[in-house]
Amino acid sequence: MSTVAETTIEADPKVPVIRISRDFDGTPEQLFRAHTDPALYAQWVGPDAMETRILEWDARAGGGWRYVAGRDGEEYGFRGCFHEVRPDRIVQTFTFEGQPDDVALETLWFEDLGNGRCRLRVQSLVDSFEGRDAWLASGMETGVNEGYAKLDRMLVDGTL
Amino acid sequence: MSTVAETTIEADPKVPVIRISRDFDGTPEQLFRAHTDPALYAQWVGPDAMETRILEWDARAGGGWRYVAGRDGEEYGFRGCFHEVRPDRIVQTFTFEGQPDDVALETLWFEDLGNGRCRLRVQSLVDSFEGRDAWLASGMETGVNEGYAKLDRMLVDGTL
Repeated sequence: MSTVAETTIEADPKVPVIRISRDFDGTPEQLFRAHTDPALYAQWVGPDAMETRILEWDARAGGGWRYVAGRDGEEYGFRGCFHEVRPDRIVQTFTFEGQPDDVALETLWFEDLGNGRCRLRVQSLVDSFEGRDAWLASGMETGVNEGYAKLDRMLVDGTL
Repeated sequence: MSTVAETTIEADPKVPVIRISRDFDGTPEQLFRAHTDPALYAQWVGPDAMETRILEWDARAGGGWRYVAGRDGEEYGFRGCFHEVRPDRIVQTFTFEGQPDDVALETLWFEDLGNGRCRLRVQSLVDSFEGRDAWLASGMETGVNEGYAKLDRMLVDGTL
């Protein structure tokens, strides 16, 4: 059984928040692992064309993370800290090092839908609508969609 | 010379943010130290009646922090992670453990005003206006004002 899943990406009208929702043919435990195990995370995050190298990864409350994503000899750095890591929720900060003054507060929820399926919800909070809308206009949905499609394949082929 | 300093606490009308501004008779370096050295931090943070015990403190990007504040045998826990620690800016997360699902993203700026004075600006971002306004209505300004008055005294008596 395979489900063609749809990712919804929404801008909140009242607060500078982006909300993403995506269902998977996997358990919350598998999705949690995909977001906390650095070797697994590097296999799916970002668009297809990018290769991810994890430089720092301490997935516990009060730990830090940093990775670079490379394409055609160019590298882009990302970093943050984990505020909370629990089976149903991760809270972490996020900065693209090319815009070091911008920081997002991200919350991820892993919701059990039964029958081996789960819903991933992601909320990204920033401090201005301008920053939020610039990010939405940057083509970020390509990375989101292609990343989650890689996750689908890892659930099918047993990597997760 | 002594200045009676005023703390301004403002709610942003457009985004769920609280902004605090306070001038001090001290340098940015002194204020930075007061916010990063755990022994110094415990001496001034919070209202007069509270005693602070630091349980965890790693003031660098990707480090965690946790402390408990006690009064009359009751203890209140607070925790978060440091996203960025640099001389002119600290970015960190903040949770009161009594409301573990609520997380604020805090940014602190240390601005040199010359003549040995500086301005501390603090921005707290949360994901709803209801949460922001409940926090403002909670009497948080007492802790802010009394804490900064203790900082004033530490600058005068040479502790900082």
